[in-house]
Amino acid sequence: MQFFKVKTSEELRDELQSLVKLLDSEISGIEPALGRVLATDVHSPVDLPDFNRSIMDGFAVRARDTFGASASSPAYLKVIGEVLMGETTTLKVSTGEAVKIATGGMLPANADAVVMVEDTDYEMAESKSSPSNSQDDILIEVTKAVAPGDNIVRIGEDVRQSQKLLSKGHQLRPQDIGALAGVGILEVEVYRQPTVAIIPTGDEIIPPNETPKPGQIRDINSYSLAGLVRQTGGIPIRFSLIPDNHTALQESVREALKTSDVVLISGGSSVGTRDVALDVIAGIDGAQILAHGVSIRPGKPVIAAIARDKYIFGMPGNPVSAMVVFELFVKSLLQWLSGLQQPNWDIKSVKAKLNTNFSSDAGREDYVRVRLIETADGLMAEPVLGKSALISTMVKADGTVKIPIGVEGLEAGEEVTVFLF
Amino acid sequence: MQFFKVKTSEELRDELQSLVKLLDSEISGIEPALGRVLATDVHSPVDLPDFNRSIMDGFAVRARDTFGASASSPAYLKVIGEVLMGETTTLKVSTGEAVKIATGGMLPANADAVVMVEDTDYEMAESKSSPSNSQDDILIEVTKAVAPGDNIVRIGEDVRQSQKLLSKGHQLRPQDIGALAGVGILEVEVYRQPTVAIIPTGDEIIPPNETPKPGQIRDINSYSLAGLVRQTGGIPIRFSLIPDNHTALQESVREALKTSDVVLISGGSSVGTRDVALDVIAGIDGAQILAHGVSIRPGKPVIAAIARDKYIFGMPGNPVSAMVVFELFVKSLLQWLSGLQQPNWDIKSVKAKLNTNFSSDAGREDYVRVRLIETADGLMAEPVLGKSALISTMVKADGTVKIPIGVEGLEAGEEVTVFLF
Repeated sequence: MQFFKVKTSEELRDELQSLVKLLDSEISGIEPALGRVLATDVHSPVDLPDFNRSIMDGFAVRARDTFGASASSPAYLKVIGEVLMGETTTLKVSTGEAVKIATGGMLPANADAVVMVEDTDYEMAESKSSPSNSQDDILIEVTKAVAPGDNIVRIGEDVRQSQKLLSKGHQLRPQDIGALAGVGILEVEVYRQPTVAIIPTGDEIIPPNETPKPGQIRDINSYSLAGLVRQTGGIPIRFSLIPDNHTALQESVREALKTSDVVLISGGSSVGTRDVALDVIAGIDGAQILAHGVSIRPGKPVIAAIARDKYIFGMPGNPVSAMVVFELFVKSLLQWLSGLQQPNWDIKSVKAKLNTNFSSDAGREDYVRVRLIETADGLMAEPVLGKSALISTMVKADGTVKIPIGVEGLEAGEEVTVFLF
Repeated sequence: MQFFKVKTSEELRDELQSLVKLLDSEISGIEPALGRVLATDVHSPVDLPDFNRSIMDGFAVRARDTFGASASSPAYLKVIGEVLMGETTTLKVSTGEAVKIATGGMLPANADAVVMVEDTDYEMAESKSSPSNSQDDILIEVTKAVAPGDNIVRIGEDVRQSQKLLSKGHQLRPQDIGALAGVGILEVEVYRQPTVAIIPTGDEIIPPNETPKPGQIRDINSYSLAGLVRQTGGIPIRFSLIPDNHTALQESVREALKTSDVVLISGGSSVGTRDVALDVIAGIDGAQILAHGVSIRPGKPVIAAIARDKYIFGMPGNPVSAMVVFELFVKSLLQWLSGLQQPNWDIKSVKAKLNTNFSSDAGREDYVRVRLIETADGLMAEPVLGKSALISTMVKADGTVKIPIGVEGLEAGEEVTVFLF
């Protein structure tokens, strides 16, 4: 038996983070890459747009021809034709001339701005009779001056060729997928999604589709842990139930290590099952136990180990503890493995006022389940009471409040940060 | 041409919400139901647990036998056997007796509490030589009193039979899936995921895998909108590009209405393409135009319509406007259609201080893209400048700040709510 290493949550997190080796990357189409993390910087191969483009319906002009124009003293311009959408134009705008253009149209040569149709006396109703190739020249009044660049997007103004569009470590959002499509990038290099084996153990545990005999209970943790893995962007693999037996667990863990980046042995909270899990983990070739117990509540009996580039956790059997341990250590590990650079503000939390006193043991970090209630006085957080063996307390709760080590409790009315599920 | 109905965003949201008819429900396995919305309340068919269960390693006792026990005046109990995990026990605890039990074990008859092994003089090292059926009775010292119910979970204490476990309208989280597994529910009735057809239009638009000729530009919006639909829990269906042609668009929309709950015609920001979209939408059998223009910036040229139970949007062609319109109207609609009861605090936002003055037009609701910066003074929001035709401004931004109608601007240092992407 190895030395019993109880750590603080910060010590274990720091150690895990310092040991992390990024997963391999893989090529993905841009659409399925939504939510994935970029493994390289992405530079644009092209200018976007690659032509000067109108962003208003109106008239392409030389801006200087409109200088000083106003409703009382309009500028008069001759419309020499119209730009067709999606086509290049051979028209050139000379002094005193304008070319009719729609949003998205390509600016003719010499034009450097667009006058909005609203700032002319041109009637949109006429737009159906095209002024293009018209025998009679149309003269328009421009009632508002434009500056060069007004109402157009210049070549490369959105994205310049070779410009870094997205950075390594960035998690792809819908607008990023749109921008990639816009510059013609259809595949990106993203980190592989971590695979997480979940091995439920315990002589008293049965699969949920079976009917418990007296003394048996259905597996909860494989299901809540698999959901947490999916939510974090990992791929959960639920293994078969293993009785509290060293050989059977050892075989299952060896199998899991072949295919998975992370193995969660979902205990068994009793000392006996924890001992079996610890023995099996310690016996893995090259295994180094990082923590055997962490000073948190709930979640204290967690075991954390690394064996080469694989991570193994002995998860507490208690459903609430298992979820807290996941949120604190496994979730972060999965994010680090897949290269995510997550800013602090992107962690889902809200501020609320505690609606009652809550006492804590100063010797450990406490995670209090709370329910949120909207009141006239603002958002209130109400502790969900009940033993941490009860999954229903997590079902009733909206999030958790952390009480740090050294703090003996929180007072009613105190503002707290609630980390949302 | 119908009457031009410019609405406020609130008017359009209220109208959409009042018209919503919930989608059908369907049966789903509990694991794929993660993130889906329940279409019925869920009651537990069983008590969880269905036996009194120890949640500590120790000794099952009659609590009254320990009353007054302390380190200086321990209670002495005779250990008459051990509970095996996952099995029923025939043992009965009489006055002065105790039964060894592990976490998860079934309490013997007459026991109403568990004394933790730490509160006895029993050495866990002995745990390998079972006291069960031992010829020599083991006597333990109990150094701490327990009350009835201590360190056990009683029948139904987690979930009581027939109790409402989860409510209609609730979005399933990992702990909910775990609790369902725990009570043996393997399938749930959830609302169908809304299907959303996305029809890109515009003579100048080409698919991203093609190389633009002069005057052409790659499709951005189908990709960012599809990503937004997926993030909202809908199923996006990207349709082929349609030129600005009434017949072609009409055919495509008719096809889309057959298979989809919501149709997004991704314009074309020019009046010409908007006119085609409006004509096609107005021509749909039973169509009622809800808005033609909304007083927001960006996003003003949106068209919203309902035709029987289907919703059709003419989305602005501008990439930023299209995303703002999605976030404001389409996202909420998809959530309403799929029955989600989302509390206000669950909308992802953070507070930050604006780092510069920002002026707005009081006549409309303004959505300012901002980048978040962590500073010694706390989180700062910096407006991302640039025309709203530029997708790169959305790539650089972390969220948006709303400036309501009637407000002429925000001042540097002012606290704002940033809605995160």
